[in-house]
Amino acid sequence: MENFGGKKKECAYEKEENGVGNGGGIEMKKKWCFKANESISSASGITIRGTLGMLMESRNLNDKRETIPLGHGDPSAFPCFRTSLIAEDAIVDCLRSSKFNSYSPSVGIQSARRAVAEYLSRDLSYELSAEDVFLTVGCIQSIEIVLSVLARRGANILLPRPGFPIYESRATFSNLEIRHFDLLPEKGWEVDLDAVKALADENTVAMVVINPGNPCGNVLSYQHMKKVAETARKLGILIISDEVYGHLTFVNNRFIPMGSFGSIAPVLTLGSISKRWLVPGWRLGWITVNDPNGYLKEAKIVDSIIGYANISTDPATFIQAAVPKILEETTEDFFDNTISILRESAEICYDVINEIDCIYCPHKPDGSMFVMVKIDTSLLEDIIDDMDFCTKLAKEESVIVLPGICVGMRNWLRITFAIEPLRLQDGLRRMKDFCQRHSNKL
Amino acid sequence: MENFGGKKKECAYEKEENGVGNGGGIEMKKKWCFKANESISSASGITIRGTLGMLMESRNLNDKRETIPLGHGDPSAFPCFRTSLIAEDAIVDCLRSSKFNSYSPSVGIQSARRAVAEYLSRDLSYELSAEDVFLTVGCIQSIEIVLSVLARRGANILLPRPGFPIYESRATFSNLEIRHFDLLPEKGWEVDLDAVKALADENTVAMVVINPGNPCGNVLSYQHMKKVAETARKLGILIISDEVYGHLTFVNNRFIPMGSFGSIAPVLTLGSISKRWLVPGWRLGWITVNDPNGYLKEAKIVDSIIGYANISTDPATFIQAAVPKILEETTEDFFDNTISILRESAEICYDVINEIDCIYCPHKPDGSMFVMVKIDTSLLEDIIDDMDFCTKLAKEESVIVLPGICVGMRNWLRITFAIEPLRLQDGLRRMKDFCQRHSNKL
Repeated sequence: MENFGGKKKECAYEKEENGVGNGGGIEMKKKWCFKANESISSASGITIRGTLGMLMESRNLNDKRETIPLGHGDPSAFPCFRTSLIAEDAIVDCLRSSKFNSYSPSVGIQSARRAVAEYLSRDLSYELSAEDVFLTVGCIQSIEIVLSVLARRGANILLPRPGFPIYESRATFSNLEIRHFDLLPEKGWEVDLDAVKALADENTVAMVVINPGNPCGNVLSYQHMKKVAETARKLGILIISDEVYGHLTFVNNRFIPMGSFGSIAPVLTLGSISKRWLVPGWRLGWITVNDPNGYLKEAKIVDSIIGYANISTDPATFIQAAVPKILEETTEDFFDNTISILRESAEICYDVINEIDCIYCPHKPDGSMFVMVKIDTSLLEDIIDDMDFCTKLAKEESVIVLPGICVGMRNWLRITFAIEPLRLQDGLRRMKDFCQRHSNKL
Repeated sequence: MENFGGKKKECAYEKEENGVGNGGGIEMKKKWCFKANESISSASGITIRGTLGMLMESRNLNDKRETIPLGHGDPSAFPCFRTSLIAEDAIVDCLRSSKFNSYSPSVGIQSARRAVAEYLSRDLSYELSAEDVFLTVGCIQSIEIVLSVLARRGANILLPRPGFPIYESRATFSNLEIRHFDLLPEKGWEVDLDAVKALADENTVAMVVINPGNPCGNVLSYQHMKKVAETARKLGILIISDEVYGHLTFVNNRFIPMGSFGSIAPVLTLGSISKRWLVPGWRLGWITVNDPNGYLKEAKIVDSIIGYANISTDPATFIQAAVPKILEETTEDFFDNTISILRESAEICYDVINEIDCIYCPHKPDGSMFVMVKIDTSLLEDIIDDMDFCTKLAKEESVIVLPGICVGMRNWLRITFAIEPLRLQDGLRRMKDFCQRHSNKL
């Protein structure tokens, strides 16, 4: 491969016959022209999935206790978090009708787009139309589409720290320069708007807001969200509002969609049924255009979303077809039950964490399924950082917690409380034991 | 936006207040920093979906006859092409178990990967393992992943003409240079291997083979496939073998997977349950690594596929979970029924086309769901090209056929025969009337 002089390359096969004969191995390798695109390895370097998988492998297999998974935001494995039967029935009906085995339109089937528009319009002062909604294969594809669309040459994007690492991965893969602004723990994880202003320049295209917060478990107030929108307008950027945990709030702050401020600055809202309906494996998400002034349409952003959808895959058609029934007919008691368990779990989580000396929780969670806590390694004897903490915790206690470094915060932890309360208590107690055992005060 | 002098940009909001006041419209537009990524509009320029949608809109709504869709490769809308009940039951069982509502591993769940490996190994002289299989959201995502992985800087890829335009779109989007080789109608649409050799250079990474052929309806012979593999080996490139229509053959040529020649040149096989099970809307596909010598692993191509999967979406988990039952338990009579209808339809198609003066079919289809036919515009009075033909056919006869330009062949047509035989006859008769009406021999 190294020594091609002319336009045509030498013939690998002949070379082999004349040279090392049939020999495979090192000589052969050099003859193949393909190699991997390096931007993928840099984009997919640190992922939540990869880290949690590594921690699972760190467990001591002789430990007969149940593993307590406090890493993933996916409670659907627990019976108390089973999805609504109405949602299951809707899927079965659509499948059995055999009307939805065909390809769907690339932007999603019309009845489902309309249902999402109506569902989201309930919380807005204006009506979304079906044409404002694009169905996706879960929010991961929503992120892929939006960042691909915005990644014009030279552009940069403002991402929150801590955040959700798929944004970093997809921005890196799309050559979209990343600039991080902090969320402020002492202010309930509000956006550091001064930092946003300082970071933005003429090539900044968007800022990402995740509300309710992953990984922080906070819920933004109306006043703060309005300031975010006004800042975006000043800077001439759009807001990507990740509302995957929309409506999963359980303290005072009510969930307000960022689209409420769409007439101040244009908003692309990313959502899905994954969390509220406890079915992340169904892979049904959306992108909505919350932009009553039509700036995103004028800037061809909407056309570009459609264009990208045209060359991309879609959610299963029969799952799309079930969306109207799922959104319209799920009863309040299903949602209330989820919220009530999450509220109880968040309380348990906060209380036990407060009993642990070396861990500090700056903000009791109001929503989503997570809380961020800070490790004080100076109080620990043989734990050098968050990754070390999580690896040893997995090994010694079969408890899986995400190291903060995966969400941009070294020496923090992201803990999921969206598991059955009894198991959560068990896991946190093991974590407490672990911290006591490793304390340098012993 | 145009006049930013320094690093910090002017404030769009203040500008508005000092300048045109509250005025929306033209002045406002200039202040927003986002614009669409232009590579998406070039990548998604001509798509099959877009063209068929445009043709559907060309129909005369006063024509009360049923529309005959000969454009899409999706027969699932017709009762005679309903999927197997075994497949439906498998999905319902997995959904109702509530064990598969969670996220899946990014490469797919292990039981499904293993089932695909076993299914494909039946036709190979070596065994694939579960680790050779990566599940995808249908073959469109398989193409996205493979082309993204291969798109190192400066690389080029060899694509067949005629072909399947998503390859062009995804290669363009990934900055992978496209070089086309012809398929030869007079040789049963075999690959023009001399053209392949002439096109390849040291930056060529792969060639794409679609077998059974879309859009040509041909099935490659063992001897020809072996020559393809030997050519790839000589050139040091891998083969991307698109076998979405695998096993859908109905004349003499038996379907042979390209993976059979994986020890000559490495093969990435793309497949899905979409066509053989008549469920393109279920969005379940795969990429398999057919490379007994391990060259793709050594070149980090396999790692890169895993890396890309880590930052991408997945098929619905409960659909993945149904794969073992679908692949293992579907009975032969289901497949036989499909093949027998396709064989009958292909016969009808070939016979009627031969009765039409201005259309020529160089090769009777042996497989897949399509046939390519050439229009002789010199015999037509007022039809300038294939797009004009299809637009007028849609308008005058409510028959939808894909213009050849969408698959790279001007003045050809791609006709799907995978519809109910009676409707196919009706559609082809209308096409015959259309051609007679527009003939310049009248």
